[in-house]
Amino acid sequence: MALIVQKYGGTSVGSPERIKNVAKRVARWKSQGHDVVVVVSAMSGETNRLIALAKDIQSQPDARELDVMVSTGEQVTIALLSMALLEIGVPARSYTGGQVRILTDNAHTKARILSIDEHNMRADLKAGRVVVVAGFQGIDEAGNITTLGRGGSDTTGVALAAALNADECQIYTDVDGVYTTDPRIVPEARRLKTITFEEMLEMASLGSKVLQIRSVEFAGKYKVRLRVLSSFEDEGEGTLITFEEDKDMEKAVISGIAFNRDEAKITVLGVPDRPGIAYQILGPVGEANIDVDMIVQNVGHDGLTDFSFTVHRNDYQKTLKVLQPVLEHTKARGVQSGDKIAKVSVVGVGMRSHAGIASTMFRTLAEEGINIEMISTSEIKISVVIDEKYTELAVRVLHKAFGLDQPA
Amino acid sequence: MALIVQKYGGTSVGSPERIKNVAKRVARWKSQGHDVVVVVSAMSGETNRLIALAKDIQSQPDARELDVMVSTGEQVTIALLSMALLEIGVPARSYTGGQVRILTDNAHTKARILSIDEHNMRADLKAGRVVVVAGFQGIDEAGNITTLGRGGSDTTGVALAAALNADECQIYTDVDGVYTTDPRIVPEARRLKTITFEEMLEMASLGSKVLQIRSVEFAGKYKVRLRVLSSFEDEGEGTLITFEEDKDMEKAVISGIAFNRDEAKITVLGVPDRPGIAYQILGPVGEANIDVDMIVQNVGHDGLTDFSFTVHRNDYQKTLKVLQPVLEHTKARGVQSGDKIAKVSVVGVGMRSHAGIASTMFRTLAEEGINIEMISTSEIKISVVIDEKYTELAVRVLHKAFGLDQPA
Repeated sequence: MALIVQKYGGTSVGSPERIKNVAKRVARWKSQGHDVVVVVSAMSGETNRLIALAKDIQSQPDARELDVMVSTGEQVTIALLSMALLEIGVPARSYTGGQVRILTDNAHTKARILSIDEHNMRADLKAGRVVVVAGFQGIDEAGNITTLGRGGSDTTGVALAAALNADECQIYTDVDGVYTTDPRIVPEARRLKTITFEEMLEMASLGSKVLQIRSVEFAGKYKVRLRVLSSFEDEGEGTLITFEEDKDMEKAVISGIAFNRDEAKITVLGVPDRPGIAYQILGPVGEANIDVDMIVQNVGHDGLTDFSFTVHRNDYQKTLKVLQPVLEHTKARGVQSGDKIAKVSVVGVGMRSHAGIASTMFRTLAEEGINIEMISTSEIKISVVIDEKYTELAVRVLHKAFGLDQPA
Repeated sequence: MALIVQKYGGTSVGSPERIKNVAKRVARWKSQGHDVVVVVSAMSGETNRLIALAKDIQSQPDARELDVMVSTGEQVTIALLSMALLEIGVPARSYTGGQVRILTDNAHTKARILSIDEHNMRADLKAGRVVVVAGFQGIDEAGNITTLGRGGSDTTGVALAAALNADECQIYTDVDGVYTTDPRIVPEARRLKTITFEEMLEMASLGSKVLQIRSVEFAGKYKVRLRVLSSFEDEGEGTLITFEEDKDMEKAVISGIAFNRDEAKITVLGVPDRPGIAYQILGPVGEANIDVDMIVQNVGHDGLTDFSFTVHRNDYQKTLKVLQPVLEHTKARGVQSGDKIAKVSVVGVGMRSHAGIASTMFRTLAEEGINIEMISTSEIKISVVIDEKYTELAVRVLHKAFGLDQPA
């Protein structure tokens, strides 16, 4: 008998019919003798509906009140799923974040979990009940309702699994696991049976939108065994996210090809190559609450250097504006920028001990005539920025070049 | 400077536009120097939408989970109204029932308020904020969300006014006060400037659906000054509900004509005229959770009597079924019943000291050829049961007969 935490996203609970299916799945796990805690999101579309309603009233909705409002989405789902379980004879009880007492800081709309009171949940599990918890929400010290921000339901699932010392945290979603790349682009893409946390972090942040990155970090920190599964298939073991590097020497060097078309690149040309220049450029960008992803600076010459970075496309114009005074101040020669770019990455813990990954990647792209505009590397990934129009081509040829279309 | 509790029903907050109008009204009271606590219902239609969703899952929704679900309706409205107030520069903060800590018993879907913690609300009022509270809901000792049942938002308003010792509790609704009778039937019907609690109780229970009877009882018990106003008109002082009988000797003897077409009548014929017979008949009815309204028993003869009562039409068939064994047991001669009836009542504290009200009523009906099937009286009302088809006629001629169409 194990203690399982299951998390179902908005699509999985998007209609009464789907909620009934989730109840049946939970009932199967329960009938196998397991204790089950279920975390659910709002029904798909509901959070957006509520936010739109708020914006009808206030163009920039007050953060505290927005949390009061948006948290009702999950509150409806926990009640419906509990009813669906009771309807098929499975004892169940719902909990809002505040009722569990998922204590967070008071950063409304993007709160962080501080602690979880497991007392009530333990009592219900002991009494044979399924515990149904609203994802994405908590309560601060003063009793205000808070939300964890988009995708926060995954984090709730992992945090509950950590607090309860659960045997596994299962994230049910509309895909049946983590793939070597997006199957819509490469039909030969394969589901990975396991992936390491570090690889998952790179895959998630690079655009394979299976799991929210924060929940993966959380799982790594608390050593929660995490599994991604499909909520629409009854069979399948999904993808297990492991802590340790795979001991299997036969394992492929590269786990997957990630890509991302949400970014824009900005290069500040001819700035003085001296200490502090990176901060002078990125300081104002950070203060404007703009997240920077890739940062590239090459060796300078003649006392000058070029400084490049990427931001989310939504922040592109804002970033250019923020940079205006910086350009004058640093006496930069100018700015080169563009938002028709794609970032493509090869990810794999295996590359740490294998030479030649980078050269294989660069050769493969060159053979297709794809120009590389920026390069950035970490221990387990290599990312390149290329022209957006080559995205699919680059992903396909790299997937093949690293043998990801061959059965592992 | 006064402390005012205002309650707005579902129609008054039925759209973003209407919520903005409520905010403007609240702002006006605030700008006059008053402290304001606002209680709101769910947006019109929302509660029914949620109940329908629950019934898609469970034909008889679990009461605890239904409360979790339905309480989200008001939670959305408090957030929206707070945003609307903030948007026009009025400091405001929302509270769910649980956040105020409106403590109730654990009778889900029909809970009763046990106590109200005024601490948080007082602090906000002192800080110059408008306090926006979700009506209709509370929390039990164990932290479960409860609801007070339909119309419970009025009760929340009155209970908060009592707890805060407010100067006035204003119930905003889609009518601008209590009328001498339904203006749709009698165009000459006039708005009453004041009405006593006792009259209001009779008017409410008799079908003038301005206020929920429970909130009126509550207001009477805690001596809360209660006023009914229109949320759609900026002028008008509505109807004040007073504790004391009007000292004004010029006041009309009768305050209004109420009527009700929701009932069915049942007469048990020829039962033994002996102690305990009323209990033998009505005991099983009460045990079946059927509310009985009028009860009439006349003097018997030959040791037998007839026993009549009315129930809600929805309970009519169920009542006849429940009575079957009773009929055999009491050896009753039979049953006479019908659901095509109306109850028409004249209400007024003034009738206590005025003779002739009953005879005026009966003569007026007789002159129109309207047969009276049952009569029941209390200190401040006389009710008759008549054929349903005469309802409008009876209301009109009684309204005129008691001079209610003349300016007070």
